[in-house]
Amino acid sequence: MKWTWVLVVVLLSFGSISLGKDSLDFPEYDGKDRVHDLNAKNYKSVMKKYDIMVVYYHDHPGSSRAAQRQFEIEELALELAAQVLDEFDDEDIGVGLIDAKHDKAVAKKLGLDESDSIFVFTEDEVIEYDGELAADTLVEFIYDVLEDPVEIIDNSKELKGFKNIEEDIKLVGYFKSHKSERFEFFGPVLQVAKALDLKLNEVDFYEPFMDEPVVVPGKPYSEEELVKFIEDHDRPTLRKLQPHNMYEIWEDDVDGEHIIAFAEESDPDGFEFLEILKQVAEDNTDNPDLSIVWIDPDDFPLLLPHWEKTFGIDLSHPQIGVVEADDADSVWLDMDDGEDLPSADELEDWLEDVLNITSLLCKINVMLYTECAVHHMDVFYDDEL
Amino acid sequence: MKWTWVLVVVLLSFGSISLGKDSLDFPEYDGKDRVHDLNAKNYKSVMKKYDIMVVYYHDHPGSSRAAQRQFEIEELALELAAQVLDEFDDEDIGVGLIDAKHDKAVAKKLGLDESDSIFVFTEDEVIEYDGELAADTLVEFIYDVLEDPVEIIDNSKELKGFKNIEEDIKLVGYFKSHKSERFEFFGPVLQVAKALDLKLNEVDFYEPFMDEPVVVPGKPYSEEELVKFIEDHDRPTLRKLQPHNMYEIWEDDVDGEHIIAFAEESDPDGFEFLEILKQVAEDNTDNPDLSIVWIDPDDFPLLLPHWEKTFGIDLSHPQIGVVEADDADSVWLDMDDGEDLPSADELEDWLEDVLNITSLLCKINVMLYTECAVHHMDVFYDDEL
Repeated sequence: MKWTWVLVVVLLSFGSISLGKDSLDFPEYDGKDRVHDLNAKNYKSVMKKYDIMVVYYHDHPGSSRAAQRQFEIEELALELAAQVLDEFDDEDIGVGLIDAKHDKAVAKKLGLDESDSIFVFTEDEVIEYDGELAADTLVEFIYDVLEDPVEIIDNSKELKGFKNIEEDIKLVGYFKSHKSERFEFFGPVLQVAKALDLKLNEVDFYEPFMDEPVVVPGKPYSEEELVKFIEDHDRPTLRKLQPHNMYEIWEDDVDGEHIIAFAEESDPDGFEFLEILKQVAEDNTDNPDLSIVWIDPDDFPLLLPHWEKTFGIDLSHPQIGVVEADDADSVWLDMDDGEDLPSADELEDWLEDVLNITSLLCKINVMLYTECAVHHMDVFYDDEL
Repeated sequence: MKWTWVLVVVLLSFGSISLGKDSLDFPEYDGKDRVHDLNAKNYKSVMKKYDIMVVYYHDHPGSSRAAQRQFEIEELALELAAQVLDEFDDEDIGVGLIDAKHDKAVAKKLGLDESDSIFVFTEDEVIEYDGELAADTLVEFIYDVLEDPVEIIDNSKELKGFKNIEEDIKLVGYFKSHKSERFEFFGPVLQVAKALDLKLNEVDFYEPFMDEPVVVPGKPYSEEELVKFIEDHDRPTLRKLQPHNMYEIWEDDVDGEHIIAFAEESDPDGFEFLEILKQVAEDNTDNPDLSIVWIDPDDFPLLLPHWEKTFGIDLSHPQIGVVEADDADSVWLDMDDGEDLPSADELEDWLEDVLNITSLLCKINVMLYTECAVHHMDVFYDDEL
């Protein structure tokens, strides 16, 4: 018996192409133009051709050599994304450009106000992508849009996996399966519900980095009520800046400021500081004015030298500071190169002081110069207070 | 008192440039050429100028439009890396190209055999970078080369951070500080040593994903002995494929084959499967023939459709298979779209069977056609055995 399949296998192996290491090679742009230039004449017919349309509504590129080359790089990133999405079997996904100078009217007709952003048109909705313009980050975002957002947790390992997701908002509910009444009595599911302290038909809301959930009030829920609850709780006490959400988070400042914490999770010092940040967030989860933006430098190697210069800090150690969203003026806590990390309580006190001071400064400045500034305040904060 | 610094702050704020969201903008290539074309005439003088030199020893680009454009993209990635590294204060870092057709002799003089690879020349050594040719991954790799490889763990949170690093080989030792005798008696350090079950002057070796270390034998150690021990244990039972090490791992096949497991850590199914993989690895850590390559699809969005086609699998669920390193022929375990994950024992049995069969096939094929093939064997494995 064994010989039959050995023979078949050997015959089949003739047909195999030598793929070798190619199977690990990143797709190279094949030179075929897939990205559409959308204009008043073609946009309707082009968009009709696809199940999902990705539209980059871009500012008209400048005329300098650098600006031209930069726009070419962005176009290439989109071409590569289009090529990869073209290989993706499940849906027809198209990519297009709208020039904000030449085709503002088209953008307007599509309901797009803000240029320099990417919009994903699906059957039911338009989703803004406010992250890095890079093929991999964008493609990953599209996969997430396409993916079924509901996962069934029915054993303890999956429960551990659910708890392991810290960076995102999570909702978890305990429901009878429509397909079968069996679920209610099924041992592992019941244990999962018990471990999560969930009642039947109840939905719990987990803020990022929080072990304890909030029960969403008002069950049985309508879709609108759930969406509204999420929107009302959309600014977590601690949130992670990532390439796919970086501009979205930056635009969501608190009174014109961001509390920015740099901590490299894979470094013992950074990990320790992140634990302290989580503690601060847990202690202050009910404070709507506190939202710490955590940046892991490992996620942004290309921005590191730029940040070190702009903020005047050394990012080989943990850092926390208050940054003006408008002009990137900033004040940073002196932590002695990471040797002297504050306790959660000390950090809370510092944040409270700094936020009060910057708010006071802001008021005074608004009176004098209509501008807020926290520039170089660390020097004074340490020495004079 | 407060008024003094308020005044100073306001004055300083005049000097601030409006950076705004720029502080989050990825550096755009500024158009200045920084990458050197190295040749017999200039390579010595160019390399003398830098503390660290990054050299891409590339194959001569083909003449097709796609090949030309692809090489331009690679050049731009290196230009961007050079620009970012130029901003980095600590060291002078240069970037250069060597064309394998025109300047093979230069490469030879620098001791480079293999083209299509990047080499980092530091003061003491040449380190090969065998990862993705992308500015961010490459720059991150250079930072790691520059970083102090030793971290001091002296409290329980840092210990937790140390344990949290799963993907890399770790070494941990318990030593008296040369600067002070105090360390030996210092409470937290002693507790850390106790928690890690470490004796004074002892070094423990942690394989990736293993909770239990191996004591490195033969203390007191010489540097050579430690390096040799690591080199002898450089192929872990479970290892993670990442952009910075992907080609390095692919070249390190076991008898021409790789066991490849796809599992998305941020997905409950994927997390569960990863837990099972870790269990299998722990049970078989002493088996030198077993090395599972774990790929998290989230790390490689651009390769996903390509892999789904090449391997004929659906990557929205966990998958495990045996892949020929040469021609990417493969056989995959049927897991019913992730609904029916195997136990660690079942997985071990399957791997043992498949590896035995592929090894048998290989021997037969070698006799007949000097080629190994596992193509389409899953059909036969399920139906006929």
